[in-house]
Amino acid sequence: MTAPAQTSATVPQPAYSPLFAAEIARAKSGVEASIRAGVHVPVPKDPGGGVTHEQHKRNYRTIFEGGQLYRLTGDVRYRDHVRDLLLAYADLYPKLGPHPAAANQVPGRLFWQSLNDSVFLVNAAQGYGAIRDTLPAADRTRIDDNMIRPMARFLSDGSPEVINRIHNHATWAAAGVGLSGYLLGDRDLVDKALLGLDKSGKAGFLRQLDLLFSPDGYYAEGPYYQRYALQPFVVFAAAIAAHDPDRKIFEHRDGIVLKAVRTAIEVTHDGNFLPLNDAMPDKSLRTEELYHAVAIAYAATKDPAFLSIADWQGRSVLTPAGQVMASDLAAGKAKPWPFASRLLGDGPDGEQGALVLLRTKPDPRGPLLVAKNSVQGMGHGHFDRLGWLYYDETGAVVTDYGAARFLNVEAKRGGRYLPENDSWASATVAHNTLVVDEQSHFAGNWKTGEKYPTQQLATALDGPTRYSIAEIGTAYKDVRFRRALLLLDVPGLANPLTLDLLRASSGTKHRYDLPLHFSGHIIDNDIAFTRNLAERPVLGKANGYQHLWVDGEGTKAGKARLTWMQGSRFYSYHMLPPAGARFIVAESGANDPEFNLRREPALIQRLDGAADATFVSLLEPHGEYDASSEAVVASSARVTALEHRREGAADLILVTLVDGRRFAVAVADDVAAGIKHSVTVDGRALAWTGPVGRFDLAKTGAKK
Amino acid sequence: MTAPAQTSATVPQPAYSPLFAAEIARAKSGVEASIRAGVHVPVPKDPGGGVTHEQHKRNYRTIFEGGQLYRLTGDVRYRDHVRDLLLAYADLYPKLGPHPAAANQVPGRLFWQSLNDSVFLVNAAQGYGAIRDTLPAADRTRIDDNMIRPMARFLSDGSPEVINRIHNHATWAAAGVGLSGYLLGDRDLVDKALLGLDKSGKAGFLRQLDLLFSPDGYYAEGPYYQRYALQPFVVFAAAIAAHDPDRKIFEHRDGIVLKAVRTAIEVTHDGNFLPLNDAMPDKSLRTEELYHAVAIAYAATKDPAFLSIADWQGRSVLTPAGQVMASDLAAGKAKPWPFASRLLGDGPDGEQGALVLLRTKPDPRGPLLVAKNSVQGMGHGHFDRLGWLYYDETGAVVTDYGAARFLNVEAKRGGRYLPENDSWASATVAHNTLVVDEQSHFAGNWKTGEKYPTQQLATALDGPTRYSIAEIGTAYKDVRFRRALLLLDVPGLANPLTLDLLRASSGTKHRYDLPLHFSGHIIDNDIAFTRNLAERPVLGKANGYQHLWVDGEGTKAGKARLTWMQGSRFYSYHMLPPAGARFIVAESGANDPEFNLRREPALIQRLDGAADATFVSLLEPHGEYDASSEAVVASSARVTALEHRREGAADLILVTLVDGRRFAVAVADDVAAGIKHSVTVDGRALAWTGPVGRFDLAKTGAKK
Repeated sequence: MTAPAQTSATVPQPAYSPLFAAEIARAKSGVEASIRAGVHVPVPKDPGGGVTHEQHKRNYRTIFEGGQLYRLTGDVRYRDHVRDLLLAYADLYPKLGPHPAAANQVPGRLFWQSLNDSVFLVNAAQGYGAIRDTLPAADRTRIDDNMIRPMARFLSDGSPEVINRIHNHATWAAAGVGLSGYLLGDRDLVDKALLGLDKSGKAGFLRQLDLLFSPDGYYAEGPYYQRYALQPFVVFAAAIAAHDPDRKIFEHRDGIVLKAVRTAIEVTHDGNFLPLNDAMPDKSLRTEELYHAVAIAYAATKDPAFLSIADWQGRSVLTPAGQVMASDLAAGKAKPWPFASRLLGDGPDGEQGALVLLRTKPDPRGPLLVAKNSVQGMGHGHFDRLGWLYYDETGAVVTDYGAARFLNVEAKRGGRYLPENDSWASATVAHNTLVVDEQSHFAGNWKTGEKYPTQQLATALDGPTRYSIAEIGTAYKDVRFRRALLLLDVPGLANPLTLDLLRASSGTKHRYDLPLHFSGHIIDNDIAFTRNLAERPVLGKANGYQHLWVDGEGTKAGKARLTWMQGSRFYSYHMLPPAGARFIVAESGANDPEFNLRREPALIQRLDGAADATFVSLLEPHGEYDASSEAVVASSARVTALEHRREGAADLILVTLVDGRRFAVAVADDVAAGIKHSVTVDGRALAWTGPVGRFDLAKTGAKK
Repeated sequence: MTAPAQTSATVPQPAYSPLFAAEIARAKSGVEASIRAGVHVPVPKDPGGGVTHEQHKRNYRTIFEGGQLYRLTGDVRYRDHVRDLLLAYADLYPKLGPHPAAANQVPGRLFWQSLNDSVFLVNAAQGYGAIRDTLPAADRTRIDDNMIRPMARFLSDGSPEVINRIHNHATWAAAGVGLSGYLLGDRDLVDKALLGLDKSGKAGFLRQLDLLFSPDGYYAEGPYYQRYALQPFVVFAAAIAAHDPDRKIFEHRDGIVLKAVRTAIEVTHDGNFLPLNDAMPDKSLRTEELYHAVAIAYAATKDPAFLSIADWQGRSVLTPAGQVMASDLAAGKAKPWPFASRLLGDGPDGEQGALVLLRTKPDPRGPLLVAKNSVQGMGHGHFDRLGWLYYDETGAVVTDYGAARFLNVEAKRGGRYLPENDSWASATVAHNTLVVDEQSHFAGNWKTGEKYPTQQLATALDGPTRYSIAEIGTAYKDVRFRRALLLLDVPGLANPLTLDLLRASSGTKHRYDLPLHFSGHIIDNDIAFTRNLAERPVLGKANGYQHLWVDGEGTKAGKARLTWMQGSRFYSYHMLPPAGARFIVAESGANDPEFNLRREPALIQRLDGAADATFVSLLEPHGEYDASSEAVVASSARVTALEHRREGAADLILVTLVDGRRFAVAVADDVAAGIKHSVTVDGRALAWTGPVGRFDLAKTGAKK
């Protein structure tokens, strides 16, 4: 030991804010348990969720937290335990080859995928950094030379196939390598982390910042991975700002790091990340990555809206940034996060399609219509161009399955992505968009999909008629389809309506399927279904269709309706598909030998043998069910009629409410902003400018 | 008007506690809205959930709350609105015949079932009582003679088939009639309410108190109806105490009214009523009935534990009792409710079986094993003798479907019980108990079931080995079965184990099915299942079997295991069925033409062609999944072996844990308390006294 023994009890402790005090208590509890358990650095053996995997995860957390606790308390027991752990790794690490449980990812040394090794190093470098100066030179040398540097070398020079990619795994590697470089004063490591192994800038952290985020701070792989990627971006950025202030990293690319944090907060509903692409549906802002991101972003901006996010998280981090944030939160400086509609351009230039978020209230739990008009999202992308989702106070209403995976549950194939992730979760039919001839978009090839953007044609983020119009002609060989999704505030209706106009055109005839995946219990419908009551077949043979049980098929002339209930609310889905269409009620879960799939309902509008097709659909949330008082209001739909007319170069949709009120929404083919359009309805001329017009019409006799 | 105009603004308002102030604000908001909307007393037309139904419900709430607000504030606008509503009813009521939407219940006048008319009168009499003295004689006479008295006469003399029953509908009727009698000074009505129409005491409120509750305060129909029935019992009891103090109603039958309130609180988990018999699964202590019950019980006892329930409810009632309770809660007088294990005898004498609640902690969300060894529960009873349920911090784990009903949702058959309530929800196979030859208990005839109690043989409520042993020989013609359910605290295991020993015996051979209905997603199992992956048949033709889809059937020699995950926890169900048994994985929802059923998993242990059978099963909660930190611990079971031996006149079950520890549980045939038993295991003599013994055995080699 280099210093006289000191314990927490002998060091005067400053008065911490409640949130920060809780972080310290939490960390103490974990680190003290680790001290009691002793140093356990097992030879790596198990895949995700296994014993050695979880032990090494615990260890990097102990190293990080123990280091911070030593910095905050001066208690040498924390420092010594961190040192002992690091020395044990210094003994073990040089002996390790590729992890024995490596599967289809690049193998690490400590973990079954090198990604986890990177995460280990990001944490270990920070924890070590907090104690390194107080260690005797011999210890420092052993840890530097037998552990930190070899790990950083393994994750840089030793893994060019990882660190030179433009991918979140490369960001974690760059952060681990770069933090190690700053810690050891090793400029070579820092430069390789920042600029790629050849230091040309064609790879590395800066290039990742330029290519992985769109100018709006949207991360190519989607919200779930945006969250995951965020931690190395912000942690390494904070280190760069401290060590290389001249780089002005927080100003890089118009402040892209902070935009990325803000956008990560925006792509949530009620704090939960939208489960686009490969995503676990239970991920929220209450994750380690966001605790760090919010603390660092607040330190860099002092924007009090970040404090309200920290308040919702109920957490901070042990760093100085976390300490300041928790203190300002306790001082009452928080302001609500201003949730609003967003058009998030996708791709490095922001022109490769977009993710559109339409909200009617700043409430994080309020209505949210999501139009997924982005690009593929690399290997974790799903085949769901022009897909949509809907959320409101009851949660997810029009849903995305997310990923087929039980993260870190060893019995579920080691916690990795399951076979059904390819066969179901990423397939087009598992999403709320057009499927042609039972094939996924881009024939299910993500590398093809990566080449073709979606065209975001027009967007309106405010006012009573918010909308997104987008188109794609490359998802199928000879089919082009365009979709207008409109979120309509209607006076007298408590909840907004979602209007969906989807037009497909082709030179040849096809089967067109338009699925809707929803959450809730079916209440009733007006479709003449032939039900499979006592024997249940599957819908198809491949591309996800093999996973759908068919509950029934039916037809309905004119507008059809399906009503379901979720939580305290009813939802009526009104459909006006092309003539000759059928309706299929289905449920996921067929051909699932390992019980890997959740069983969730879907409704499919199907048209066979058509070249062109227009699907008009309207989602109407209504009514209220109160289990406590047993009061039910408006369990039947307020929308009584839905008409569609093709008028010149525009689509006209007429909606009638139960009180006789009518309104029309016109969507022009020409999406240019300043163009004037005019159509005649029931003898009345309707004129508007731009892609979308909306009109109140004369009241009809009220129906009951 | 008889008094000068006064408004809230002119009357000094006392300082109310927050809870009571919130009640006043809530009531004002509702009553003011009603004042603005004007008097709407429509001619009755619609069934439950319909427009006239909901309007009359709103009106009785307005009458009740408006009366209380007038009493509290002296604002005559409240009084006048209540008076106007009552006068409108006085005009309408005499013209009404049976309700046009009457179905299979006794029709009311204002509502489709007379039960709702009773609820109306209970509320209206209280609201009217708060303003009656201030009204001119002419108004009083009109309301007394054209509304209150005719309603009370209709619900008494006019409905002998209701009020003379021993049933919750009769209690509501008696309360309405009795409150009206006190209000009008009409002793005839009071006596008929208390003693039945012939005033003999063979029917009426006092007889209901004697027959509907067991000596432990358990209500024959089960928790859901216990809640529902409670309000008229406590409200009428409070009125009797005020008007007829000599009756000492709160001391009647050893304080049965207050016992009933306490027991209603006990038959919950995390505040939710156990969904036994016909029950909506979303009912909690947060209901109007319990707000009244808790306020009245607190007023009668001043037991501070009631205050913690009120705190959880977050509600009070507008009465003086509610005001005092809210004030004492605000003064910090609350104490936690002492949740504990309970043996609730069933039947008027407490000897007709029992509901057994085994808890390991006072925490309302803690582990709870429920053994349903009660009697039938009248027409709302299910055929589930010796059934069980399990709850813990993740919610319902081993589940009861409850009722097949969407309360007050008009599209679901007017909100009434659905056909699937008989065909599925009440059937034996929909429960966690033995089914013989695919028949429900008592051949599905509740009147037969009502005649035959269950024998509660032995119970231990405390210590590390809590248990219930019960038996029934009347559910099937020639099969007798006995079940021991044990809740075992095991050192080193974070959660208790549930051990289930079920023995059936018969003179002839049968098919024995033992279903387990559970909540969660299947993780894995060690059973060789033949799966119905692409076409799904149903399990049977009748008695609920027609509603079960078959996902697969399989076998396993020795102990079999199925593991599922719910919330953050894993559950392994270990089974040691008789030799030759098969396992069936199934799901509810087949033969459901109107989408009335929820789709929930079940596992069935099936033995064919046996006269005697012993099923040994063990439920093991284990591990933790943390979505936020992505940490998973103990996703595999800690129990590695389960053995069963028949030793003399006892069953011996041996459990081995992953660390090699072993313990034995012995269950003697002779359930008498003082009897000494002894068996020999591996050369060691195990001796115990009473029905159950438990022993730690020598450790075996630890397995991993």
